[in-house]
Amino acid sequence: MSKLCVRAFSLSLDGYGAGPGQNLENPLGVGGKALHEWAFSTRTFQRMFGNDGGVAGIDDDFAVRSFDNVGAWIMGRNMFGPIRGAWLDDSWKGWWGDNPSYHAPVFILTNHARPSITMEGGTVFHFVTDGIHAALQRATEAAGGKDVRIGGGVATVRQYLQAGLVDELHLAVSPVLLGTGENLFAGIDMLKLGYRCAEHVPTAKATHVVLSKRS
Amino acid sequence: MSKLCVRAFSLSLDGYGAGPGQNLENPLGVGGKALHEWAFSTRTFQRMFGNDGGVAGIDDDFAVRSFDNVGAWIMGRNMFGPIRGAWLDDSWKGWWGDNPSYHAPVFILTNHARPSITMEGGTVFHFVTDGIHAALQRATEAAGGKDVRIGGGVATVRQYLQAGLVDELHLAVSPVLLGTGENLFAGIDMLKLGYRCAEHVPTAKATHVVLSKRS
Repeated sequence: MSKLCVRAFSLSLDGYGAGPGQNLENPLGVGGKALHEWAFSTRTFQRMFGNDGGVAGIDDDFAVRSFDNVGAWIMGRNMFGPIRGAWLDDSWKGWWGDNPSYHAPVFILTNHARPSITMEGGTVFHFVTDGIHAALQRATEAAGGKDVRIGGGVATVRQYLQAGLVDELHLAVSPVLLGTGENLFAGIDMLKLGYRCAEHVPTAKATHVVLSKRS
Repeated sequence: MSKLCVRAFSLSLDGYGAGPGQNLENPLGVGGKALHEWAFSTRTFQRMFGNDGGVAGIDDDFAVRSFDNVGAWIMGRNMFGPIRGAWLDDSWKGWWGDNPSYHAPVFILTNHARPSITMEGGTVFHFVTDGIHAALQRATEAAGGKDVRIGGGVATVRQYLQAGLVDELHLAVSPVLLGTGENLFAGIDMLKLGYRCAEHVPTAKATHVVLSKRS
């Protein structure tokens, strides 16, 4: 059965999933890049950037798992790009070049309709204006039995958590402080929503935890 | 020079330092005990409870360090006991029996004056009604050059953090969710206050981090 998953989602020690002030120069917000050091070090991510090298091991195992059996993606429009409000034109096609690493349909939550964009390598960006449930339904259909992965950002993950729709979250808690930004859990009672910590695998670079709904 | 430290302070994955609903039966709040599993497993804590056994290793090393060079303690009155408001009588002398493991002067923040209590083994409970700065001054004098450790709870640590007075925090992030309770960092910008993550030592039971002020 298709699951709705959050994977390889980095958090700071103080609970932030992104730094403040995202813009064209700081796609992850100010200081946000440090959150992802564990991922950048892996063989999997280095290959995504077309580089040799990168390290195998536990961090890489989680990076590999994060792409496993993913049939479709959901993301917020602030993860797709730095433009806010109405689209100025159709020139922005994401941060990731002509061949993004999604290789599957990506459903982007937005209040501003826009035609779908077919990229190289199987990635198609669809823009969904009728809410998180509609996006999940379309993504689940497109995934054809595989899982749907929420790419981010924090606000999008929070909406799906609060609606009780997320089956599993893999978080990587990085040894950094962000001080401010977007807090993942603020005001969300994960215990009441039925989650428990199902896996806990620390490494020198991050503490990996998998939170699952109690069955 | 005497430092003001928080040590062996357990946090949940969602940022809580204690569960909700502390009372006589749940001194750590509901679910709060799971936060401290890493500590209960150590040789140091088992000896404190008069037991043989317990495990050596990294968790125990941090437990040992937590008591190292501590000349005085500060705690909130909700850590001292479950009574709220005025003291009914002088019968409550803490959770810890006749010989508490503090073995030093302990300064308890409260709005309700009470005579000091001399326990066995060097622990003396003093009740401070004129605020966190006065408590720190008295504790620093009593420590005689050694460090002052804030025992807790969360509200007390937060007050000293917000006042910029804490030199170092050792936190142990446990692989549990509490869902609600007292959040350590909510609304506190640790980066702006000058902290960075100086140590990061994960174990199977907890991720130990030491946050220090940049010097």
